[in-house]
Amino acid sequence: MKVEYINPFIESSQSIINQTTGLSPILGKVYIKKAPYTGKNVLVLIGLIGDIKGSVVISLKNELACKIASAMMMGMPVPELNELAKSAISELCNMILGNTASIFYKNNINIDITPPTVLTGENINLTPSESTVVCVPLHLNDDTIEIDISYKEN
Amino acid sequence: MKVEYINPFIESSQSIINQTTGLSPILGKVYIKKAPYTGKNVLVLIGLIGDIKGSVVISLKNELACKIASAMMMGMPVPELNELAKSAISELCNMILGNTASIFYKNNINIDITPPTVLTGENINLTPSESTVVCVPLHLNDDTIEIDISYKEN
Repeated sequence: MKVEYINPFIESSQSIINQTTGLSPILGKVYIKKAPYTGKNVLVLIGLIGDIKGSVVISLKNELACKIASAMMMGMPVPELNELAKSAISELCNMILGNTASIFYKNNINIDITPPTVLTGENINLTPSESTVVCVPLHLNDDTIEIDISYKEN
Repeated sequence: MKVEYINPFIESSQSIINQTTGLSPILGKVYIKKAPYTGKNVLVLIGLIGDIKGSVVISLKNELACKIASAMMMGMPVPELNELAKSAISELCNMILGNTASIFYKNNINIDITPPTVLTGENINLTPSESTVVCVPLHLNDDTIEIDISYKEN
């Protein structure tokens, strides 16, 4: 795990979540987990191509996803994760990764990102192609968003 | 839906499945489905970047995934979808999409693909960023593999 490859994700996620929701996520201890691993029940997947190649999975519980979607939509009540709320979460993740790519670019590392795919379900088990996954936990509202990064250098 | 964007996926998936398993998938009726949609319990996600941008989800039932993995491994019994079997399915999808990219390239369309992510779970609901999903069903062994393609032109 190279710090210069992980820091842009941390910097970007904290800053974009704060800008879009007004909430201030607190960084937990970054750690390595081995695939396969179990995700929470709302997952957003975005692929990475370029100088590093891999995928990012943003994983959170349904209730937290509703709270974040509500905060993004000026406090509009979001009692369940409907399509509008999923679209807000999807756009949040797209902005986080887009901003991450900009930070990489300033550091002379070129990456391009795929459009996000939102998945919901139960007991979702993930196996990225790289078995080492760097997990960045962000604590928010007594709950945690996990940003799971797996990549290889090109 | 442009035929020239869908045909490479059909051609490639039929040919690669046949080469790696000896099985001959039969093409069903290609149709459009609207997101969100429910996937089967084994999903492989691969992102597309380049002249078209989006994602491909290969969706199949656990039992069929085991049969395919077994056929890929010279008939070795695969009673459950363990990590070795997932790895075989992941590699199959990587080969299908890699070959699809080669066909696009011959047609002067450049796409790059992300590494595959394998997901298993229950009641998995998918929302790609594009709401129109082209579904290519391939019938195999009294069961069906679905190749769900969502993209936009760049």
